[in-house]
Amino acid sequence: MIAHAGMLVVSMTLKLAARTRALRPSPTLAMGAKARKMREAGRSVVSFAAGEPDFGTPPEVCDEAIRALRAGETKYTPSSGTAQLRKAIAEKFIRENGLDATPEDVMATCGAKQALYNAFNVLLDPGEEAIVLAPCWPTYLDQLVVSGAVPVPVRGCDAETLEGAVSPRTRAIVVNSPCNPTGGTLDAESLAEIGRFADRHGLWVVSDEIYERLQYEGEHLSTAKFCEPQRCITISGCSKTYAMTGWRIGFAHGPTEVVRAMGCLQDQVTSNPTTFAQAGAIAALQLPNQKVEEMRETFRRRRDLIVSELQVRLGIAVPSPKGAFYVMLGLAQFLRPEETDVEFADALLEAVGVATVPGSFFLAEDSLRLSYATSEEDIIDGVGRLAEFVQGRRQ
Amino acid sequence: MIAHAGMLVVSMTLKLAARTRALRPSPTLAMGAKARKMREAGRSVVSFAAGEPDFGTPPEVCDEAIRALRAGETKYTPSSGTAQLRKAIAEKFIRENGLDATPEDVMATCGAKQALYNAFNVLLDPGEEAIVLAPCWPTYLDQLVVSGAVPVPVRGCDAETLEGAVSPRTRAIVVNSPCNPTGGTLDAESLAEIGRFADRHGLWVVSDEIYERLQYEGEHLSTAKFCEPQRCITISGCSKTYAMTGWRIGFAHGPTEVVRAMGCLQDQVTSNPTTFAQAGAIAALQLPNQKVEEMRETFRRRRDLIVSELQVRLGIAVPSPKGAFYVMLGLAQFLRPEETDVEFADALLEAVGVATVPGSFFLAEDSLRLSYATSEEDIIDGVGRLAEFVQGRRQ
Repeated sequence: MIAHAGMLVVSMTLKLAARTRALRPSPTLAMGAKARKMREAGRSVVSFAAGEPDFGTPPEVCDEAIRALRAGETKYTPSSGTAQLRKAIAEKFIRENGLDATPEDVMATCGAKQALYNAFNVLLDPGEEAIVLAPCWPTYLDQLVVSGAVPVPVRGCDAETLEGAVSPRTRAIVVNSPCNPTGGTLDAESLAEIGRFADRHGLWVVSDEIYERLQYEGEHLSTAKFCEPQRCITISGCSKTYAMTGWRIGFAHGPTEVVRAMGCLQDQVTSNPTTFAQAGAIAALQLPNQKVEEMRETFRRRRDLIVSELQVRLGIAVPSPKGAFYVMLGLAQFLRPEETDVEFADALLEAVGVATVPGSFFLAEDSLRLSYATSEEDIIDGVGRLAEFVQGRRQ
Repeated sequence: MIAHAGMLVVSMTLKLAARTRALRPSPTLAMGAKARKMREAGRSVVSFAAGEPDFGTPPEVCDEAIRALRAGETKYTPSSGTAQLRKAIAEKFIRENGLDATPEDVMATCGAKQALYNAFNVLLDPGEEAIVLAPCWPTYLDQLVVSGAVPVPVRGCDAETLEGAVSPRTRAIVVNSPCNPTGGTLDAESLAEIGRFADRHGLWVVSDEIYERLQYEGEHLSTAKFCEPQRCITISGCSKTYAMTGWRIGFAHGPTEVVRAMGCLQDQVTSNPTTFAQAGAIAALQLPNQKVEEMRETFRRRRDLIVSELQVRLGIAVPSPKGAFYVMLGLAQFLRPEETDVEFADALLEAVGVATVPGSFFLAEDSLRLSYATSEEDIIDGVGRLAEFVQGRRQ
């Protein structure tokens, strides 16, 4: 019998798991890599592809990580973060988001990305569905698929649209305000609509608020304030607010039971975020508000600049995004027949050295995502090149 | 129809995914937490529970991370690590493990734990089986279960035992030498047996070699040298070799296609390990061999001490472990009728303040795992207390 079983197996070739077919390199990172290669080859490239602030991490934060390194804080910590960091994260959610929070309701993760991955894996069984407001960051879709769940993108968050996406397998809805890629924000009315919808259908709400401190019109509103708090998981982190993308410190807030399960999963996947990076995160959360305001004001000026440059140089009206550091440029009038936004973005990079990310990567076909997390000089130079490229094609 | 679908869903209560039932807090971390609480309450506790070196990270490594922080190396890197780190990892696998390696065959991970998680998720479909040599680190079992796969523990790695564990769903075998918890190592003959077995059945081999530099008898042998290299994934990292547990830098080496898929998964789960911790890892991989030898010699002295103390104080022969920093103490003659090793470990901690980890957590019932990653004073003190505890129960 042993020999028989063996013979069945021996004829199989080595194969990878089916879930690897859903895995693809991040398209935004791929565009960055292509631009880097062109630069290395001596080409002048202006990049509107970045998904991270171009500022350095505030020195106070680096100093604290250095102090921790010197003090020997290089050992394991609890997987969900040190007691001090969890306390600081709970205080952040109370102070900035108006949520009830104790250190047991929050955790630190290896980037907000891992907080989302934890949440999806803990909330959804294989085959269950999550409604995702689109356009959206493609990682939501990929994480759900890798977890065996099914993303159901919807356009719009009015009651009719949301109801039309519900099936008996719907378990969650994913919200992202301010939004990557559109820079759009959801107002109180929309969030209340989503909250009622989630309550009506008994859905989990996963609210990615990583760009919460980069909102230029009105106050940031946390989704958890608009739904039954016991069904909402709020995700944020240090990356965008404090220019700490490489530190890999994210946060999650949610019902104690959910956070505990997310912590147990993290215990199996990575265990704790880097110990001295946690020390830096505590310092970041204690920075005076003015530091964050200064970065936000810089991004606001750049937003105003890129919107006006696009209008002046391309002669088209571009809606001014309310948050994050992205603006979407519709390509309808610029695309050649049959041309896709991916082909347009490639041609743009090749011809005039402007790196962007095609909107279709975010379920926003026929558009480009332009990141203005770059200098004012680059914004002027890059939009100038874009205009030149478009005019060249018209001739 | 929408209302109907909604009505089906509304009656459901909020539930967590089924996979959360397989999640439990790490039992080794739980013992550490219990010991910490007793210490905070003023009790004197000797801990043999630690899974990490008690040395500090070498200053050269900390200095390099500090340099990177000061130089602004705080941004995203490629998810699988910087080009420099991947080059250093490839050189390590060539130099220390005798493997063929290019930067495309290796990756950096958020700890060796994530390297294992990546491998299991990329190699096994839900329902497929992995043979695990037991006793073993419980994370293998938990990671496999969370991934939907089925761990099949076996005791012994002779051909008959291995063949008896094969089913048509067997896809992989997990090897760990030197072994946590036993400190045992696999010799060339055993590895060749495993290699032939894997080749015969077309199995992936996942070889966790995290304790590779802590081997006290003979040379460390990499499993990949004993099987078809295209079916072996070798896992290691900085944690144990360089006392860098909190840095969270692991390595994986394997077929390019597998490593690429693991990188795509990591891209979705966490993205890159902490950027300036990667810089530290490069410095660690370039440390003179003597640094590592010194740490190994210290562990060897402690091993000899704990083995002789156990023999002298408890009057029993304890086999001397060949690697890692653990020794297993059989409890057969010490347990009361019906008493489990978990109860014994709890009573030992309560009565005389000695923290250990019950063997049953590692599928080694009726035993204790004692870590000697602690000072010689603590070893003498702790074994003394253990002897006192055992004698007290005999009276």
